[in-house]
Amino acid sequence: MKYPQSFQALIHHFAALPSIGPKMAERIVLYLFKQETETLQHFGESLEELKKLRSCRRCFYITEDELCVFCADPKRDSSLVCVVEEPLDVIAIERTGSFAGLYHVLGGVLESNPGTGSDTLHINELLERADGEGIKEVIIATNPTTEGDLTGLYLKKKLEGSHVKVTRIARGLATGGDIEYADETTLTSALTNRKEI
Amino acid sequence: MKYPQSFQALIHHFAALPSIGPKMAERIVLYLFKQETETLQHFGESLEELKKLRSCRRCFYITEDELCVFCADPKRDSSLVCVVEEPLDVIAIERTGSFAGLYHVLGGVLESNPGTGSDTLHINELLERADGEGIKEVIIATNPTTEGDLTGLYLKKKLEGSHVKVTRIARGLATGGDIEYADETTLTSALTNRKEI
Repeated sequence: MKYPQSFQALIHHFAALPSIGPKMAERIVLYLFKQETETLQHFGESLEELKKLRSCRRCFYITEDELCVFCADPKRDSSLVCVVEEPLDVIAIERTGSFAGLYHVLGGVLESNPGTGSDTLHINELLERADGEGIKEVIIATNPTTEGDLTGLYLKKKLEGSHVKVTRIARGLATGGDIEYADETTLTSALTNRKEI
Repeated sequence: MKYPQSFQALIHHFAALPSIGPKMAERIVLYLFKQETETLQHFGESLEELKKLRSCRRCFYITEDELCVFCADPKRDSSLVCVVEEPLDVIAIERTGSFAGLYHVLGGVLESNPGTGSDTLHINELLERADGEGIKEVIIATNPTTEGDLTGLYLKKKLEGSHVKVTRIARGLATGGDIEYADETTLTSALTNRKEI
């Protein structure tokens, strides 16, 4: 390998990112090498500016200030809290435009192996919020996976003492989906959760 | 979209890279957000250091100085020049350990549409080298594609006046490959270029 040292160093940085292999990292760095000096400057500055971001003190979403845009917005319904795994899920829910409450980012899910992982998740912070913030409903919006469901049940149990209504987002067919190709579990959920029209 | 501004800016930078879509860019930036401040610092610095790199004055490989490591190495055989499309091809050939000459990076290939693209390629610089540097053989190592072959033939024609031997890297079956699954063109090349054993 005889790339110049700084070229090689950058390949290492890119190859360490998720879903980027060493070959793809090489191509990306070659692409960047051909870009304007200004583009590299801006990219580098953007990266270093990421250091200024932190997690919201209340809901653990990404923020520049103490509180995130949602927690700081008095127009949001603070009696309704949607619990998600990761900050990216918040954006997915925001895109629907159909939720006006606050969020709580767990930072992951419980592992199938019971008990493990609960320390690193922001579960205690959720319980504190449920006790002290006048929350009426907690919507569990973890992913519809075994771990996501397990985490939902765990939270339900933990929240039992606090008189908060706990709901789970609905399971069923995806809009535009095909019944013929739906898996059995999804189709069972769709049948069980049927609604009168 | 309610990502903090610097988070969103970084997503844009990553999504502009080859083979990275907007969704993958989001995941990468979230991953980076969770990394140590130091990692981000180093990554950002590496990016900005890429500005210090340039193309070798002689062969257009990536370098920190006037001449690249190959051109500056008196132990390399300067009578032998291997012509490649991109700097990454140089590394692929270096990995074999079976070439001790110099390189010439074209910066691409001629488009199938004849005549176009020859301005941006470092073809004239190759012709000058062939005239002035005592080169005995030019090995055309462009990719085995229509454009790569076309570029090879074009270079052969251009180099005719300079009494330099022009060769093309061999076509045949890839080592470890399977005759049953080889395409017709490759198999034809393998038969035509057969060697006595």
